[in-house]
Amino acid sequence: MKHLKWVVPFALGIAVCWGGERRLEGAKSSPSKQTLVDLEAEFMKATAEKGSQGYMSYYADDAVEVPNGGPLIVGKAEIAKGMGFLDNKDNRLEWTPVGADISASADLGYTYGNYEFHSRDKDGNPHIEYGKYTSIWKLQKDGSWKVALDMGNASPAPKR
Amino acid sequence: MKHLKWVVPFALGIAVCWGGERRLEGAKSSPSKQTLVDLEAEFMKATAEKGSQGYMSYYADDAVEVPNGGPLIVGKAEIAKGMGFLDNKDNRLEWTPVGADISASADLGYTYGNYEFHSRDKDGNPHIEYGKYTSIWKLQKDGSWKVALDMGNASPAPKR
Repeated sequence: MKHLKWVVPFALGIAVCWGGERRLEGAKSSPSKQTLVDLEAEFMKATAEKGSQGYMSYYADDAVEVPNGGPLIVGKAEIAKGMGFLDNKDNRLEWTPVGADISASADLGYTYGNYEFHSRDKDGNPHIEYGKYTSIWKLQKDGSWKVALDMGNASPAPKR
Repeated sequence: MKHLKWVVPFALGIAVCWGGERRLEGAKSSPSKQTLVDLEAEFMKATAEKGSQGYMSYYADDAVEVPNGGPLIVGKAEIAKGMGFLDNKDNRLEWTPVGADISASADLGYTYGNYEFHSRDKDGNPHIEYGKYTSIWKLQKDGSWKVALDMGNASPAPKR
């Protein structure tokens, strides 16, 4: 049996390593769909409080905007140029996630849902534009989550 | 030194386990962005050849459609009800991916790009509608990739 003396420490080595890998995996995959839904609430709060600056602070540097009626816009700096309307106090962008998913590696996910854009028409009357959105979220090197792609389109006005 | 006899087999155990994990990781993450771009080409070919049936064969059972101008549509069966227009030989849907990304775990990814919908107006004249899309792809339990979410919106007609 002398030649089997290596079996116990060998098995122990396997066990220690395997346990470590599982813990690592657990730590890596701790963000969930709910993480992204919670992020959306923070994102909306930052937009309400700080306008375009708050909104853009959730975008990745290499983000892509897919706007309805316009061409693709590539890069946070380019996207920011069109977001000044969020600094007008008459305007309010609100959105509600309907669903979300995240990868097993918890580094890529998405949310989708409905939005309402509250503004005033040329006569100063309140106006609401209804739409839908998809936001793709990507874990950044600094550990933060940022929007990698955002797309919007139109919805019919809800029946009241 | 007798008590150090366990060191070599223990270290060997760690090494064998670690190597195995890395190989497993390599195998799991072999699909790439390009996998999704290639899939899009197959998806479009299936649509051209088999109409709505070919198109829908790339959708997950629990897919979500985010159509421009309409409400969210949930589930492959519901989405299929609106895709009959792809069986009209006068209609042709073509799309070109511009970008793609995939999670580290290679189970979730997306593509986005431009589409053209070729049809005929009421007078029988050729008509082209221009738009953009985002498709989120999810690895299924059977190992196939399916569309988990698809969204479209409008683009201006290109300047010729």
